Amino acid sequence: MNELDLVDRLRRLSLPSTDLILGIGDDCAIYRPRAGEELLFTTDQMIEGVHFTRKQPASSIGERALARSLSDIAAMGGEPRFCIVAMAAADTKWINDFYRGLLRLAKRTGTTLAGGDLARDEKVRCDVMVCGSAPRGKALRRDGARVGDSIFVSGRLGKPWDRRIEPRLELGKSLRGLATACIDLSDGLSLDLHRLCAASGVAAEIDRVPVMKGSSIERALHGGEDYELLFTGTKAPKGVTRIGRVVRGEAGKIQFQGRLLERRGYDHFYE
Amino acid sequence: MNELDLVDRLRRLSLPSTDLILGIGDDCAIYRPRAGEELLFTTDQMIEGVHFTRKQPASSIGERALARSLSDIAAMGGEPRFCIVAMAAADTKWINDFYRGLLRLAKRTGTTLAGGDLARDEKVRCDVMVCGSAPRGKALRRDGARVGDSIFVSGRLGKPWDRRIEPRLELGKSLRGLATACIDLSDGLSLDLHRLCAASGVAAEIDRVPVMKGSSIERALHGGEDYELLFTGTKAPKGVTRIGRVVRGEAGKIQFQGRLLERRGYDHFYE
Repeated sequence: MNELDLVDRLRRLSLPSTDLILGIGDDCAIYRPRAGEELLFTTDQMIEGVHFTRKQPASSIGERALARSLSDIAAMGGEPRFCIVAMAAADTKWINDFYRGLLRLAKRTGTTLAGGDLARDEKVRCDVMVCGSAPRGKALRRDGARVGDSIFVSGRLGKPWDRRIEPRLELGKSLRGLATACIDLSDGLSLDLHRLCAASGVAAEIDRVPVMKGSSIERALHGGEDYELLFTGTKAPKGVTRIGRVVRGEAGKIQFQGRLLERRGYDHFYE
Repeated sequence: MNELDLVDRLRRLSLPSTDLILGIGDDCAIYRPRAGEELLFTTDQMIEGVHFTRKQPASSIGERALARSLSDIAAMGGEPRFCIVAMAAADTKWINDFYRGLLRLAKRTGTTLAGGDLARDEKVRCDVMVCGSAPRGKALRRDGARVGDSIFVSGRLGKPWDRRIEPRLELGKSLRGLATACIDLSDGLSLDLHRLCAASGVAAEIDRVPVMKGSSIERALHGGEDYELLFTGTKAPKGVTRIGRVVRGEAGKIQFQGRLLERRGYDHFYE
């Protein structure tokens, strides 16, 4: 199989889209924006030896690569529109399996594969850019938390790494006009809540955290890769847990059960 | 320096944009489309050991990484709006130098750095996604060449790899409504002209090729990384060279001076 065959195959497998005037196969994809929409853009890398190993099935790596970016779209209250995938690998079977996993999730979430770039390299890596859409002015941001807001989290925290990511797209959409701020938990509650509070210029007090069965409070507070939504507001949909409240104080300072919570989440460049 | 410092620094250095409602620092960037515009998306990878070595200055790698994607925007007749950069590296000085080069070209071309992803890895790689804009229905594609059109190319071909790329953005814009098809020369004239002709369902006859001083006809025909524009039409702006014409025949078949031209351009997965 050569690059042209691979690209042809992906073009046939990709979900059709009325907004995507031109998809895979030209120098650029062309997207025609809908009236009144704002577009959301996010990207996430998966690198062999850093984010995964070749022991894991390629299809689950493909699914995860898209899921991580979709989680960012969920955190902004967006609906996915399309994705663009850059990938380097040497094994065409691996690449096909990767795309099978990615395209399965893409189909389920209404995400069209619009294009990408392929390179040959022994070390596998990929980068998935997703474009999402939200009505003008309705996207959720991380800088709107207000003193007195409650803090909520979806699901239970402390996921083992190999657990499948289910991007919280429906929840994110339902938070439009309801949440004052929102972020997805990718680097751990302590670091991501700090980021939300720092952006909003507020502090927070956490009373309790819903811990996943078999996990620990440590992992729930500081472990990354939960991909649940953390948000603030006065009301919340059913099925989420109130974990604390937004308070006046040093921007980004977090207390857990009366004590200062260290930030020990994942920072690639912390030295 | 940690990841937050690096991101803060990039945010300060990035070009402001009125369309980019939210740039670096949230889960997603937010772009508000202008009335009547269509958006163009392209991405290109640069991988250490595949596309460059660490002997080359990081700033020139950064500039080149953006220039390659801007060349795709030029080939579609677009104006760049913003870019999103995913990068893995371990040396923060290298990263800073890389972004210095990238941001210099970004500023010169009106491209805002809207976001990205950073990971730590010994092997350097990056991926630059660029979003461009064209008036509705005006983007140039590769599938519109018609029998009887002339074939034109900008500049001279057969560039040595280390030559700076100057994306042909002004030329691309001037071809809107003039060129019937356009592609940028990234993988070599023989392969890229084949792609344009195959997409358009036509064949081509080439008489001559403008060769860069010190280069060879072989390199001009089959060498990659020229990043000039190859386009078809009945008229062309000044300063470009007519190299042949579009003819009826097997889709994608190219003749050079009366003989079949082999496709020997760069295909990462040709086996």
